[in-house]
Amino acid sequence: MEIAVVTIGDELLNGDVIDTNTADIARQLACAGYSVGQAITLPDNPRQIASTLQYLNENKIIALVCGGLGPTRDDVTARAAAQAFHLTLALNDTALAQIEEYFSHAGRTLPAGNEKQALIPHKAKVMRNQCGTAPGFIINHDNCPTFFMPGVPHEMNDMLEREVMPTLQRFIRPNVCVSERVFKVFGLEESSIERRLATLNLPRQVQISFRLEFPLVLVKLKVRADDENALEQAEKIVREQFGIHVVAYDNETMAEVVSGELMAAETTLALAESCTGGLIAKMLTDIPGSSSYLERGVVSYANSAKHDLLGVSDELLMSKGAVSAECAEAMANGVRQRAKTELALAVTGIAGPGGGTPQKPCGTVFIALANTQGTQVRECHFSGDRQQVRIKTAYTALDWLRQILAG
Amino acid sequence: MEIAVVTIGDELLNGDVIDTNTADIARQLACAGYSVGQAITLPDNPRQIASTLQYLNENKIIALVCGGLGPTRDDVTARAAAQAFHLTLALNDTALAQIEEYFSHAGRTLPAGNEKQALIPHKAKVMRNQCGTAPGFIINHDNCPTFFMPGVPHEMNDMLEREVMPTLQRFIRPNVCVSERVFKVFGLEESSIERRLATLNLPRQVQISFRLEFPLVLVKLKVRADDENALEQAEKIVREQFGIHVVAYDNETMAEVVSGELMAAETTLALAESCTGGLIAKMLTDIPGSSSYLERGVVSYANSAKHDLLGVSDELLMSKGAVSAECAEAMANGVRQRAKTELALAVTGIAGPGGGTPQKPCGTVFIALANTQGTQVRECHFSGDRQQVRIKTAYTALDWLRQILAG
Repeated sequence: MEIAVVTIGDELLNGDVIDTNTADIARQLACAGYSVGQAITLPDNPRQIASTLQYLNENKIIALVCGGLGPTRDDVTARAAAQAFHLTLALNDTALAQIEEYFSHAGRTLPAGNEKQALIPHKAKVMRNQCGTAPGFIINHDNCPTFFMPGVPHEMNDMLEREVMPTLQRFIRPNVCVSERVFKVFGLEESSIERRLATLNLPRQVQISFRLEFPLVLVKLKVRADDENALEQAEKIVREQFGIHVVAYDNETMAEVVSGELMAAETTLALAESCTGGLIAKMLTDIPGSSSYLERGVVSYANSAKHDLLGVSDELLMSKGAVSAECAEAMANGVRQRAKTELALAVTGIAGPGGGTPQKPCGTVFIALANTQGTQVRECHFSGDRQQVRIKTAYTALDWLRQILAG
Repeated sequence: MEIAVVTIGDELLNGDVIDTNTADIARQLACAGYSVGQAITLPDNPRQIASTLQYLNENKIIALVCGGLGPTRDDVTARAAAQAFHLTLALNDTALAQIEEYFSHAGRTLPAGNEKQALIPHKAKVMRNQCGTAPGFIINHDNCPTFFMPGVPHEMNDMLEREVMPTLQRFIRPNVCVSERVFKVFGLEESSIERRLATLNLPRQVQISFRLEFPLVLVKLKVRADDENALEQAEKIVREQFGIHVVAYDNETMAEVVSGELMAAETTLALAESCTGGLIAKMLTDIPGSSSYLERGVVSYANSAKHDLLGVSDELLMSKGAVSAECAEAMANGVRQRAKTELALAVTGIAGPGGGTPQKPCGTVFIALANTQGTQVRECHFSGDRQQVRIKTAYTALDWLRQILAG
């Protein structure tokens, strides 16, 4: 049996929304050794959905469907599924109980429209939605199952992992179990990474691919599960080649790695941000547990804030300017002393689009790192628009912290 | 005749790459008044590609195909196209000249593998690629054209606009030229929005759709271009119905709207964030010009930071706790006095997953807004995980600011 992904929604076919569910599903399936034979996107049209589901089922293709299970009128997937498999829609008690539980858990009563989400084809088996109101369901017709999941990405991903994957394994065995390792590389160009990889002598069983996940380049090594030795060998070679530029592996993010290092070191950190405007603090506090090391963050946008909160002197601001190595240094020292932390990170720069000068064009950024040994400053010149400059600044600052913590 | 988008590439079906081409094509077509009936993603498998192309052509569906025209071995689309329409592959002089020109323009000679890209089905009409090496082509079989474009997004977009759209118009007339308006609604459930819309007496020419863009619900009104009056009428009714809940229109973001209001009011703002950890500052400073109103932001994670930077007293922190209405109020007052701004916004809460208690479960958040008239505090109870609680907190805070500024 083959597997197809079916995504449903007018918004996917009029350019309003980029479909990320297909890639998410494909990734989870690939990790489990399955491959996806095709993906189909359909509008909220019951007839078209029904005939596609019928066609796939008749051809013994297992369909993973997502979207169109919401409470509104244009959510028609359950109706189309009933039509495709000649079933009737019925109020499902299990589904209704789960929806009610979801609302009561959130301290609310069930809004009128949401009852509709418990209307699913009879004979369908309900899949619990832990993250939202739309239950999923499975229809097993002629021993070829069709899985229906909500379209909201985090709800779909959770249901896929918890409910769909275990059931799928009862119908179809993985083609090839694959093992893979993703290296997240920071601070090197994609083309330079490709050239370096071409010179390496990797075991021939190892498949390599790259992909940009701005500002990181992801290098993926893939082998069949019985070639784990080759993967280990390749990993060692790649790690040696890229050394300190490998900032994370697999699903880890830069912020998670840095946060983990900070916690492991049982150290404390203070931040002073100008051009990144809270982005670094936001990235670190996205990760649970950040309160154990982050004492404070200061978004010192105005000079008065740099003066009051960080003790940057007015003379320095006048003579060197707010975007200068001296100011970055004073910001890091100021916030570190006041917060009484071991570490402090400060950034000041011009993210653009305005504010650049011939001497200090947009993209000019100074980053300072202070610890018990003293304070160091780096001058950077980033290309790109405002968002790109801000993101590159945050990553460069966090990467510096990572390297210091790694010793 | 109907239109289908076909994207080709193993990387789209193993989770390595998210397909953005379908949405890009759909958007360009929608702007020109065309609708896309379905989208299909296929692996680099010539037989499967050929049979899909055949099926679409036999059903008089115009296919816009992209991907698989590159110079490497796994690029098989041209071969599959030849097979589908019973043509032979031939070295196309026009295509070869264009590829050579592209390389000579870049000051390079044609690499060996790239000649393969000039091998296209005979009878196909070449489409020029101004941005890369892979030429596109059109096969017009039984007066139903199939368009082949490269998969690299900027090459595809350029070819679509310059070559495909003008030709498409010779085969199929736009269904409808459409005008649309998107309302971004905050603070109401999707189901409650639909119930309200159902009670409205909108002109029947107006098509309504919704979509979740967490934490906003987007309501889209659409009419044919000759029904602009109906759209205006509907807009007025919808605006009256949702009033203050409409936070933005069309492509605007909440942060852009609030930023615009702050600039228009020529006012100043200071932020004190605990549970959002810099997210609100980050959202506002994403928008150019934020330095004109944002004096400072404080990420007061530790109690010492709340005390030192915001003047929150130790007694208050001891007696009421850091997550309390009193603390939020003191944070807003403290940052406002110290920053000498007109406005101040403060948030403190428990984003989770840890830190909740029976009295103050995860999702408990206090938001305070201080201005010349005094300080107000709101207590909120948000559902969801850490990210969702943080995002809902930031939007609720910014929305409050927006409402205050709108008077």
